[in-house]
Amino acid sequence: MSLFVSFEGGEGCGKSTILKLLAAKLEKEGYGLVLTREPGGTPIAEQIRNVILDKANTKMDPRTEALLYAASRRQHLVEKIWPALKEGKIVLCDRFLDSSLAYQGVARGLGIDEVLNMNYFATEKTFPDLTLLFDLQPEIGLERIAENANREVNRLDLEKLSFHAKVRDAFHELARRFANRYVIIDASRSIEEVEAAAYQAIKERLAR
Amino acid sequence: MSLFVSFEGGEGCGKSTILKLLAAKLEKEGYGLVLTREPGGTPIAEQIRNVILDKANTKMDPRTEALLYAASRRQHLVEKIWPALKEGKIVLCDRFLDSSLAYQGVARGLGIDEVLNMNYFATEKTFPDLTLLFDLQPEIGLERIAENANREVNRLDLEKLSFHAKVRDAFHELARRFANRYVIIDASRSIEEVEAAAYQAIKERLAR
Repeated sequence: MSLFVSFEGGEGCGKSTILKLLAAKLEKEGYGLVLTREPGGTPIAEQIRNVILDKANTKMDPRTEALLYAASRRQHLVEKIWPALKEGKIVLCDRFLDSSLAYQGVARGLGIDEVLNMNYFATEKTFPDLTLLFDLQPEIGLERIAENANREVNRLDLEKLSFHAKVRDAFHELARRFANRYVIIDASRSIEEVEAAAYQAIKERLAR
Repeated sequence: MSLFVSFEGGEGCGKSTILKLLAAKLEKEGYGLVLTREPGGTPIAEQIRNVILDKANTKMDPRTEALLYAASRRQHLVEKIWPALKEGKIVLCDRFLDSSLAYQGVARGLGIDEVLNMNYFATEKTFPDLTLLFDLQPEIGLERIAENANREVNRLDLEKLSFHAKVRDAFHELARRFANRYVIIDASRSIEEVEAAAYQAIKERLAR
């Protein structure tokens, strides 16, 4: 059976690390897996991502940014996620739609419904089957990033603490709204504990 | 007073030539003018345009394309069109929203309402005050392009005739739907006659 799992959370919440650990574990158990993250290695989506992340583009309007993320998401779905799900794979995706809803919809102030409605054009209402929210106080997440010399600091890391607090609140709001697919995981614990909780959530979903 | 005029029509309809002639005429009369076309010389919108037009991007999904046009449109509005209108200028824009509705909405089959609704996110329901539709049989438009050695053939020119016929029908449908801002100009006539008709339509709108 196919399963589409998105990994969401603020900066430094550990979701990318956990995703890799889980993938190794599930692969050993014989599951067909696809690990991905927007832009997902599709050349068109990569080109779009380059426009978004270009540090020279300081004049980028928040709506332009949201539209570019949606365009990249569309291409990622068409070229990679939908074909993998059709083949019955488990897709583990580092950030998806909900990141746009939290970052552009809430933290940038465009509104969740406004961004969601526009994204329907891109996704044709494809949602993850399961969204794992790695929940963490932003102070701790940012500390982790500062301590981790291997992790390159990106544009989002440099936003003010209040921005990251808004993002966290937004994910909680999304977890209430989409309660049927959300599992909140306390990401302040050890990697082993967080991994075990995420593993359990996926296995439970697979057993349904 | 400000006025936002979009120039629409199929390939080879002459709208870009007429736009320049009209601009020269109106400028002599003392109007403050801005001539533009998406991406409008804004660096971010140019980068987006480059992704759309990259001939290597043969796998681009029609919805990705529509989202990228909307992103480019948004940036063009924010950086160029809205500021010009605020300054009381006349903005002459070579293609705008309606081209997306005709090309992606109808000719690519995504649906006018689907593309329009998504574009509302980009435009916040800004429409041109006046849309001049340079109406021409596609056979004649394509002949004109073939005869004009100075005009580089682009990706759209190479579509089949049936594609261009769909685009023409789509513009007629839009002219009915948005009758309050549309003026249809018979573009099969001489440049002088077409220019005179377009000039008259703009002057009438300015006199309101």
